[in-house]
Amino acid sequence: MQPARSSHDVRITGFASYLPALMHDNTTLPPLDEPAAPDDLARIGVLRRGWAGDGEGIAEMAAIAARRALARARIAAADLDVIIVANWTQRRYLPEFAPTVKLLLGAGRAFAHELGCACAGFLYGLGTASEFLRNPRYRRALVVASEHTSRRARPGSRGTLILGDAAGAFVLERSGGERASGGRLIDYELACDGEHAGIMEISDEGWVHTRIAQRELCALAARSIAEVSGRLLARNHLTLADVTWVIPHSGTAGVQAAIVRVFALPPERILTNYASVGNVSSASIPVAVDHFVASGLVRPGDVVLSAAVGGGWYAAAALYTVAEVAGPGEARA
Amino acid sequence: MQPARSSHDVRITGFASYLPALMHDNTTLPPLDEPAAPDDLARIGVLRRGWAGDGEGIAEMAAIAARRALARARIAAADLDVIIVANWTQRRYLPEFAPTVKLLLGAGRAFAHELGCACAGFLYGLGTASEFLRNPRYRRALVVASEHTSRRARPGSRGTLILGDAAGAFVLERSGGERASGGRLIDYELACDGEHAGIMEISDEGWVHTRIAQRELCALAARSIAEVSGRLLARNHLTLADVTWVIPHSGTAGVQAAIVRVFALPPERILTNYASVGNVSSASIPVAVDHFVASGLVRPGDVVLSAAVGGGWYAAAALYTVAEVAGPGEARA
Repeated sequence: MQPARSSHDVRITGFASYLPALMHDNTTLPPLDEPAAPDDLARIGVLRRGWAGDGEGIAEMAAIAARRALARARIAAADLDVIIVANWTQRRYLPEFAPTVKLLLGAGRAFAHELGCACAGFLYGLGTASEFLRNPRYRRALVVASEHTSRRARPGSRGTLILGDAAGAFVLERSGGERASGGRLIDYELACDGEHAGIMEISDEGWVHTRIAQRELCALAARSIAEVSGRLLARNHLTLADVTWVIPHSGTAGVQAAIVRVFALPPERILTNYASVGNVSSASIPVAVDHFVASGLVRPGDVVLSAAVGGGWYAAAALYTVAEVAGPGEARA
Repeated sequence: MQPARSSHDVRITGFASYLPALMHDNTTLPPLDEPAAPDDLARIGVLRRGWAGDGEGIAEMAAIAARRALARARIAAADLDVIIVANWTQRRYLPEFAPTVKLLLGAGRAFAHELGCACAGFLYGLGTASEFLRNPRYRRALVVASEHTSRRARPGSRGTLILGDAAGAFVLERSGGERASGGRLIDYELACDGEHAGIMEISDEGWVHTRIAQRELCALAARSIAEVSGRLLARNHLTLADVTWVIPHSGTAGVQAAIVRVFALPPERILTNYASVGNVSSASIPVAVDHFVASGLVRPGDVVLSAAVGGGWYAAAALYTVAEVAGPGEARA
C-alpha cells in the first residue's frame, strides 16, 4: 500500500554523516578494568567506535555533517530557515552549540536551537522541523545530531566498548510543487513517560549509569518502540508489510535483539551499523541512513521506519522515503 | 490598526505563574563579599527574589504554574497534546525534566520536551508550540518556563541580588472556530547569533560569568530586541503605536533602561516586575504577564509585545493579546 499524500509535503533532500578521525578498534581502546574475553566482545558486538579529538567539538562535527547534507541537497546554507541541533552528551548550561553551528555554516537568516531528548533527539528534531515547515515563511530546515557519547562512559568500563562519537544530518524542504524530488517525510510520532525518569542517570563525573537490569531496559525499549511505531503506522494506514527497512536507534546489541523480536520481521530488514560505529546516541539514525544508502542497500523509494528511545524516558518514530544521493558536484535527480 | 487574521488561529487560553515560598528581601539574603550600599541596591533595582527549596524542583514548580494555567483555561491536563518546558538553569545531561512534568500533570497523551535557549526559552517554546498546533492532530499545548536562576549566581556575589527562581506558563489552543475565546498569539520571531557565543559562560562551579562590559551587554541586548521586534511588527503591518504594552525579559536594570531607549516609548508602557522577583530568566515574561493582568493594568484585548535575549546568543519576540482571567472555579468568558 502506498503512503497517503497529505497536503503538508516535506521532502528529505539531503542527508549525510561524520565520523571522527580516530576510530578505535578493540585493540586500540585504552585497557578496561576487567579485560573482555572474545565471547564478551562478540556479545557486545561493536568492532569500531569514534573518539572525537581536537577540532571535533559538537558544533564542528555538526557543521561537517550539515555541509555534506546541504551539498547533496544543492542548497546553500544561506537559504536555510530553521536549524535544530540534537545533542545531550555535551550539554552545557550556557552557551548552547546551536548558534555556533549556524555561524560555522554561514546560515545567515536561519534561527537555530538545541534539543536534548537523549537518544531520541534526532527524531524529535525531525518532527519539530517538519511542523515549522508548515509556516509559509519557512521553507528549508536542517536537523543535525552531534554527540560525544564516548565521554559519557566511565574510563575503563565496558561502556567504552559501546559508546562512540558521530554526527548525522537531514535537510528538509517543504515541497512547493515544482520541486518534489527527494525522499518524503511521511509522518512522525513523539512520546515520553516520566515514570521511567530514574532508570538512566549521569553521575557527578558525567558517566551514564543504568539503574535497572539490562534485560528490563531492553524490554522497555522494545515495548516503547513498538508502541510509537504501531501508532505511527496505524495513523498512516500502513503495516510493517509496507515498510522496506526498519532503521532503529541502535542502543545495544540487547536492545537490537529485542527490537527484532517485537517487530517479528526477518532480522535482515532491520538495519544498524552499530558494529562499525558503536552507540552514537541521537546521531545513530542519520549515520545509518547515510551508510546503508551509500552501500546501495537502501534505495530511492524504499519506505523506512526509524524509531528511537532515550533516557528521560523518550520514544519517537518516523516514516520516510530516501532520496537519490547526489555528490556535492553532481546534478540532483 | 488591527492585527491581521491569519488562517492559523492560536489562542492563549490560560496563563499563570509560581514563585517560591522563600522570597528573600535585601535584608534576609546571605551576606555579600562586599556589602552593597543603598545607592548600589537602588541601582540594581531588585527588592525581592525567590530561592526554591525542598519540593520546588524545576519539574515541581513547572507543574504548579501549569496547573494554575490549565485551571484558568478550563482544560484538563489529559487533553494536552504538546508540552514544552523551558529551562536552562538546572540543565542536566540526563534525565530531562519534561517527562516528569508530564507525569506530575497527568497529561497522559501529550509528548513533552525541553528547550534551553537561555532567557529566550519561553518565547522559543511559544513559537515552537504554535507550529505544532498547525498539525490537525494537535489541539492544545502547554509552554512552561521553570528556572533556578539563583543557583547560577556565585554565593556572595552581587548576582545573588539579581537572580531569582520562578515558573510561568501559557496554555495555547488552536481555535476550531467554535471556541475562539482567549487572547491570541498573533505571531512570533526567533533569531540567534553565534558570533556572541562567548560573551556569557558558566564556570565549572556553575556560576554565570559575563565576559564583556555590562554597558556592551546592555547595548547588544537592546539592539537584538529591537531587531527581532522590528521584523515581527513589520511582517504584521504593525508599528509600536499599535502595541499597548511591551513586556520584555527583564535581564538587569541596565538592559531595561536600554530597552526603554531603543523603543523610544514612554517608560510606563514597558512593564516588568523585576523589582519584586528579580531576573527569573525564561520565566520572566509569563510571570510578568500574570502579575500585570492580576493587577488590572493589562486588560483583555490589549496588544502585548514581548521580547527576550539570552546567552548563546538568542533573541526572540512575540505579539499577542491577553485573555480574560477566570479563576479555577469560574466560567470562561
